[in-house]
Amino acid sequence: MSHRIVRRIRRADADVVRTLGAQGVATIHEAQGRTGLMRPYMRPIYPAARIAASAVTVSCQPGDNLMIHAAIEVCQPGDALVVAPTSESTDGMFGELLATSCRAHGILGLIIEAGVRDSADLTAMDFPVWAKAISAQGTVKASAGSVNVDVVCAGAFVRPGDVIIGDQDGVVVVRREAAAEVARLGAARIEKEEKSRRRLHAGELGVDFYGLRAKLAELGVEYVDEETEM
Amino acid sequence: MSHRIVRRIRRADADVVRTLGAQGVATIHEAQGRTGLMRPYMRPIYPAARIAASAVTVSCQPGDNLMIHAAIEVCQPGDALVVAPTSESTDGMFGELLATSCRAHGILGLIIEAGVRDSADLTAMDFPVWAKAISAQGTVKASAGSVNVDVVCAGAFVRPGDVIIGDQDGVVVVRREAAAEVARLGAARIEKEEKSRRRLHAGELGVDFYGLRAKLAELGVEYVDEETEM
Amino acid sequence: MSHRIVRRIRRADADVVRTLGAQGVATIHEAQGRTGLMRPYMRPIYPAARIAASAVTVSCQPGDNLMIHAAIEVCQPGDALVVAPTSESTDGMFGELLATSCRAHGILGLIIEAGVRDSADLTAMDFPVWAKAISAQGTVKASAGSVNVDVVCAGAFVRPGDVIIGDQDGVVVVRREAAAEVARLGAARIEKEEKSRRRLHAGELGVDFYGLRAKLAELGVEYVDEETEM
Amino acid sequence: MSHRIVRRIRRADADVVRTLGAQGVATIHEAQGRTGLMRPYMRPIYPAARIAASAVTVSCQPGDNLMIHAAIEVCQPGDALVVAPTSESTDGMFGELLATSCRAHGILGLIIEAGVRDSADLTAMDFPVWAKAISAQGTVKASAGSVNVDVVCAGAFVRPGDVIIGDQDGVVVVRREAAAEVARLGAARIEKEEKSRRRLHAGELGVDFYGLRAKLAELGVEYVDEETEM
Amino acid sequence: MSHRIVRRIRRADADVVRTLGAQGVATIHEAQGRTGLMRPYMRPIYPAARIAASAVTVSCQPGDNLMIHAAIEVCQPGDALVVAPTSESTDGMFGELLATSCRAHGILGLIIEAGVRDSADLTAMDFPVWAKAISAQGTVKASAGSVNVDVVCAGAFVRPGDVIIGDQDGVVVVRREAAAEVARLGAARIEKEEKSRRRLHAGELGVDFYGLRAKLAELGVEYVDEETEM
Amino acid sequence: MSHRIVRRIRRADADVVRTLGAQGVATIHEAQGRTGLMRPYMRPIYPAARIAASAVTVSCQPGDNLMIHAAIEVCQPGDALVVAPTSESTDGMFGELLATSCRAHGILGLIIEAGVRDSADLTAMDFPVWAKAISAQGTVKASAGSVNVDVVCAGAFVRPGDVIIGDQDGVVVVRREAAAEVARLGAARIEKEEKSRRRLHAGELGVDFYGLRAKLAELGVEYVDEETEM
Repeated sequence: MSHRIVRRIRRADADVVRTLGAQGVATIHEAQGRTGLMRPYMRPIYPAARIAASAVTVSCQPGDNLMIHAAIEVCQPGDALVVAPTSESTDGMFGELLATSCRAHGILGLIIEAGVRDSADLTAMDFPVWAKAISAQGTVKASAGSVNVDVVCAGAFVRPGDVIIGDQDGVVVVRREAAAEVARLGAARIEKEEKSRRRLHAGELGVDFYGLRAKLAELGVEYVDEETEM
Repeated sequence: MSHRIVRRIRRADADVVRTLGAQGVATIHEAQGRTGLMRPYMRPIYPAARIAASAVTVSCQPGDNLMIHAAIEVCQPGDALVVAPTSESTDGMFGELLATSCRAHGILGLIIEAGVRDSADLTAMDFPVWAKAISAQGTVKASAGSVNVDVVCAGAFVRPGDVIIGDQDGVVVVRREAAAEVARLGAARIEKEEKSRRRLHAGELGVDFYGLRAKLAELGVEYVDEETEM
Repeated sequence: MSHRIVRRIRRADADVVRTLGAQGVATIHEAQGRTGLMRPYMRPIYPAARIAASAVTVSCQPGDNLMIHAAIEVCQPGDALVVAPTSESTDGMFGELLATSCRAHGILGLIIEAGVRDSADLTAMDFPVWAKAISAQGTVKASAGSVNVDVVCAGAFVRPGDVIIGDQDGVVVVRREAAAEVARLGAARIEKEEKSRRRLHAGELGVDFYGLRAKLAELGVEYVDEETEM
Repeated sequence: MSHRIVRRIRRADADVVRTLGAQGVATIHEAQGRTGLMRPYMRPIYPAARIAASAVTVSCQPGDNLMIHAAIEVCQPGDALVVAPTSESTDGMFGELLATSCRAHGILGLIIEAGVRDSADLTAMDFPVWAKAISAQGTVKASAGSVNVDVVCAGAFVRPGDVIIGDQDGVVVVRREAAAEVARLGAARIEKEEKSRRRLHAGELGVDFYGLRAKLAELGVEYVDEETEM
Repeated sequence: MSHRIVRRIRRADADVVRTLGAQGVATIHEAQGRTGLMRPYMRPIYPAARIAASAVTVSCQPGDNLMIHAAIEVCQPGDALVVAPTSESTDGMFGELLATSCRAHGILGLIIEAGVRDSADLTAMDFPVWAKAISAQGTVKASAGSVNVDVVCAGAFVRPGDVIIGDQDGVVVVRREAAAEVARLGAARIEKEEKSRRRLHAGELGVDFYGLRAKLAELGVEYVDEETEM
Repeated sequence: MSHRIVRRIRRADADVVRTLGAQGVATIHEAQGRTGLMRPYMRPIYPAARIAASAVTVSCQPGDNLMIHAAIEVCQPGDALVVAPTSESTDGMFGELLATSCRAHGILGLIIEAGVRDSADLTAMDFPVWAKAISAQGTVKASAGSVNVDVVCAGAFVRPGDVIIGDQDGVVVVRREAAAEVARLGAARIEKEEKSRRRLHAGELGVDFYGLRAKLAELGVEYVDEETEM
């Protein structure tokens, strides 16, 4: 139960991470059986934010960014910081200076179940962040925590090296060891959806297309031509 | 109390719907005596979203979009889907494939007291949606519900065929049978506001313009030149 | 305890206000010892909103904008309205007509712990507003309140004439009499941060730069090369 | 769209109301097809609160209890007030004096989508209230509203004369004209549940009792003896 | 702007504090013009909690109770701690050991805009607490703060030595220098309410008693005997 | 990623579980380094609720209690159900019939990140439940899920067989393999606290007792006798 910083973690294959990033959060979430999604209060700080990266996890005291500084040292290009404070807070634990440091080390972005500040600067830098609040409230650098340990962030369990995908729909976590398989399932899903899209675009109805008429009948849903007064 | 899909509903006159759309939510809400407004947690998923349409209502299990598919079949061009799950949920019950299907049938947009996904795609398509959350969490197609029955959506009572107007200020419902009268009252209000705007723009004060000085005096509000220490 | 409108207040020096505006909320909040920040639910209604102004405060009944009208008369160019209803509400107490009136009198923007409406118009006018909700729900003009008295707005204590700075990170209040000193401290902070930025940009680590290695050791945080299975 | 007070409403049969009250909220909600439930933020102000009554509805300005006073006059013994402000508020619109007046007229309790005060007194009086907040914040008596019109209260549509049942599980609304039928279905449900209770109490499993083993198999849920490491 | 602990504060007269305590939160809030009420999310941790005391204020880092310990030393019997963290938190900053220490020094209770723990023990001790959460999450003793400075707690401005009254309806703050006058106004209000209570108990209607019939007519509220179908 | 029900799990020693239950949530949370606490919105449905049990975990669709039924079969006396729906919901997924079934099988209580119903009956049975809502909203028995897999419940990571302790302060999870060690650390903590309690009860100050005077000085907190006007 002591605090520790783990220097080396295993990461998913870079091509797989890239593929998952192109598939997007909704597709991946479906592809892996609707697991790994963070709670919907995790929002990107600007609309165009997108990320696909390997997670370097940070467990820390809320309102204290000491461990975020410590985490940057063990990151590699292509990583994202996943910061999980030990209790609820909206303090702005990360800002433009930390983003500058991240960028200097190839860190792609930040997922934090707390607040961030300098949000206009982060947007101008195109440094993608998913957070639960925007707040100028600053932090101390005083409390112990851990880097690259298992964390729960916004309701999702994240292991160091897991793949993190974020876009406008939120953030999803893919287990490192399942990443290639999920990417394959995601590709299959995209292909299938492309066919659905063409048929729906042509005007075919979902109730026919997905064979739902029988389901509706079985559930006892009746069709009536016009509502009559009760 | 059985579940049913009502095929034919009466709709308001298309010109009236268009007029209401041009007037906007705040004006209409005032024009009809400050009624029919949905709760402010219903937000457009992109800033430019606007809609004026006839409501096809959907009552369904949260996390289940079977009845949305069923509803599309009974829509006409110019309709909007108004989806009211039977209990609270933020699941993403609607995404880009359903929007593609909606568009193929002339459906103008979606009002949903739940979540939506593929929000970047919906924005790119300019398919307007007002929702209470954005979430990649997908849904099943398994539970009975009803289409074109009375529903309560985000605190507003909606009947099939009612006019739905949505913009940056939220969503307002106009009773179908009152639509023409509300449009007339809205037009009068806009004309009156244009006069107010000119006078206020010219520097006239609201306290003079609206005759509020007497009110302030009657309420016992005192003017003092400078605050003295208590 | 009677309601009153105070006509004359002292304001901070205009150059100091301008300087504070250029420094931004996060810097100022730090410069004055992390005080004066409003709660993070106060959000700008459009991303580019920025303000630096002297506060004319309004204490009023929620859902009643009589006192906002009264407040405009005692404003000077360069002021901002800070509206604090006496209990919680999301009603849209301010809209485009009031903004037109404000602008005619040189009022720079609005901070309101309630809702606003006509948000698309306010955005088009570039009239900056920080609010807790957007809602078309209109208001009456019926209840007594006060102008230029001490108020608590979104958790921050505001005195008439205090300097209000707002940007994407939220809203911070600077005591009028401390404004020049805070601006000086803010400038020092910006200078110091510029140096930090250059070093971090060059790849120096925060743990070295801020001397945090000793802190980590003192706190008992251990470095391990690789996680071993528990 | 004018404001009005409707003096006479139809009510459900008193015996039916009493029967529904004995069945409780969860049973009734099931019996009528899971409709009519208010949102779960409506909580009783003390644990023993229970009510079964005919609704006298009040639509009013938040923070204004004028129409509650007006409503008391048109109530009969056995009624409950159902108060729906036109926008969100937590103000304490009802207290011990109003409860004293209600009791003098045989009014059984209060359902209010806002706050109440004097909660200790209301508890001591055993005057049951379901509210969304407890707040000492008082109100004015200044704005028009309506009594005995259709309202939406906490997400449920309520017509004057509908039956209101409240207990520890929340509040449910039964359409007046459906009350007898719902009471009959509720009684059947209670009888059926009593049988289930006996069998479950005796140790029979729900998976057997409700025939769920086939369902689990059909859904592809596998049984494994022990988790093996992934 | 440095942190400080102020040893001596002025307090209101003990008899006045006692009188205010007997009057209760709702009465006092009315008596002083509906000011000074904390937000309704401040709830007593057990139903019978009541307090009337002089405020010793604490401004501190969330999740850090160092300054609470420091505050106890400067308290006198009859005081209450009013703790306002500088940003939002639900951490349990106070528990049974601190309550034991408080009681040893005659401190009557706690108002805290954060969490508390050991809630069952605090209840057993009858040590009254108003808080925004109950949470076992512990705290550090590491950050500077201040004692007996002006604070904003749950939306209310509190000065050291102000009178704090708490009961089931929430918490209200009375300015120390206004306490005697507020107690006098509260007593008058109670007397007046006793008369109202007798008349309402006897069945007199509020619309007659408060003279509201004219108001209703003036506002255009119409009486109709029965609702006719629209 | 398929759904599965794991029949056999390892559990902690029954004596250790009992010891942890006697220590309580706050003590255990401290003893294990402030980890494993569920979010504070998880509240007991009645004040006297207490539990110490081995976790049988359930991952399920919100609003669907099929998997709860399936889980009961694999429970042993002394277990608690820990139910984690895959997305947010307040539906009442558990009621008195399920509690009757649980009791027949020796299951001690329920932790559920959703709603429960029949709360008065559950209280009367003294069947302890920690939930995020009370709601009569019933559920279907239609969707696949898993039993005895790793879940995230209310922000805490729970493995099958972990020890769950719940009381008035919330819910904490102890890793099965760490249970004995945590119980030992908890006992040490209780002993130490008993000494602190005696000294604090005798009037010794925390600032002396915990040696905080040096800390305050080091942090630059100044003592002043009386506040002078700024």
